[in-house]
Amino acid sequence: MISKNQAKFIKSLQLKKYRKQAQCFVVDGEKGVKEAIQSDFELVQIVCTESFAESNQSLFPKGVELITANEKQLSQISSFQTNENVLAVVRQKPNQVPQIGASEFVLVLDDIRDPGNLGSIIRSADWFGVRKIIASPETADFYNPKVINATMGSFTRVRFGYTDLVELFSTTNANVYGTFMKGSDVHSFSFKSPAYIVIGNEGQGISPAVGQFVTARVSIPGVEGAESLNAAVATGIVLDNLSRLKK
Amino acid sequence: MISKNQAKFIKSLQLKKYRKQAQCFVVDGEKGVKEAIQSDFELVQIVCTESFAESNQSLFPKGVELITANEKQLSQISSFQTNENVLAVVRQKPNQVPQIGASEFVLVLDDIRDPGNLGSIIRSADWFGVRKIIASPETADFYNPKVINATMGSFTRVRFGYTDLVELFSTTNANVYGTFMKGSDVHSFSFKSPAYIVIGNEGQGISPAVGQFVTARVSIPGVEGAESLNAAVATGIVLDNLSRLKK
Repeated sequence: MISKNQAKFIKSLQLKKYRKQAQCFVVDGEKGVKEAIQSDFELVQIVCTESFAESNQSLFPKGVELITANEKQLSQISSFQTNENVLAVVRQKPNQVPQIGASEFVLVLDDIRDPGNLGSIIRSADWFGVRKIIASPETADFYNPKVINATMGSFTRVRFGYTDLVELFSTTNANVYGTFMKGSDVHSFSFKSPAYIVIGNEGQGISPAVGQFVTARVSIPGVEGAESLNAAVATGIVLDNLSRLKK
Repeated sequence: MISKNQAKFIKSLQLKKYRKQAQCFVVDGEKGVKEAIQSDFELVQIVCTESFAESNQSLFPKGVELITANEKQLSQISSFQTNENVLAVVRQKPNQVPQIGASEFVLVLDDIRDPGNLGSIIRSADWFGVRKIIASPETADFYNPKVINATMGSFTRVRFGYTDLVELFSTTNANVYGTFMKGSDVHSFSFKSPAYIVIGNEGQGISPAVGQFVTARVSIPGVEGAESLNAAVATGIVLDNLSRLKK
């Protein structure tokens, strides 16, 4: 059975400070844990009910510490309100900025602050096969449990790294497409690889420091009088328009 | 200055039970309050700092009760973590199901449970000019502060009503398009008005009871191995594809 110290350690991983210290994060729920097992992430601990352990032990990788807990204990250490039966403590990967290939599109996030938006963006990127994502240091933490949960397992299939975007763009020959309120209509825009596709912050959009590197501005046409789109929704729409062109 | 009872009343509106009792809801922040003032919603109270009142009093509608509060008091009664300077208590409208016009598209939500998703969907619908939305009774409460905040003011520009979807669809001659994991490619789908566009629940999708009325299934093409899209993102993508056809 899970000890007080083990429970305390896992709960502490809800905070970035302790995640950074331990270089670990938590994956909640059966779906996410199974995705993590099949991925190249290293699992450190699996905490689950005895019945879950009995039915799934054959899936558990060698070397991972198995800790049993009852449902009440699980819900207390989980960031889910109702974590049914399993969570895993997983090793963080060292920060590595994905390299853009000659015919690739790479998603770039300029200060996406909301963890739910970040998770949803990762999920969309996975859906559309844009599996390299680069984020500014001010973007929400990839390993935040709200991010991991919102990806619905997609966190295992993307390559994600943080870097200073000005440095990134200072040395690239790739196109840099930015999403703005005013720009070329995304419906007729001709995306040309290699290209970075930059998504701006929820409130401020793309920062001027990053904006100066944008080679073309694209926008999603809306009707008059409307305000704007949620950043994750806008990202999904841009990626969908990009995916049309790949057909 | 705001009294304890006034503060207690406003805080109580974070819960659906008390919103229903009072038939009121809260709009937080300058942007939302200004949108509400310009809309056909009836404002009951405006709670703001003295300096906000001084600079904006000319905007305040007649008959609305003005209550001043300091920043600390405002942040305590607000559902925002940091509400700078103003909130409004606004009268709910009676539930009214929007009627579909002969050449209209109406968005239908089959149990969208997450308030952030619902708010984001309303914001997208406003952006694309699909300003009638019908929701199943199990959909999140339109007047939930998380919904209102996530709409970024768009709640003032849509007509939104709850009804039993089986009853709605039993008596309609309009097309009923449903979003599914497998269906006609939304990129080449020919949306024909009048039509309802049905978005399913975050986990379960469109329920079988509602699905039986769907006249055509549409889906957003993704790459192999990916999981699915967030419901609000999927809605935005479908509406963007619809908006292409209107050009």
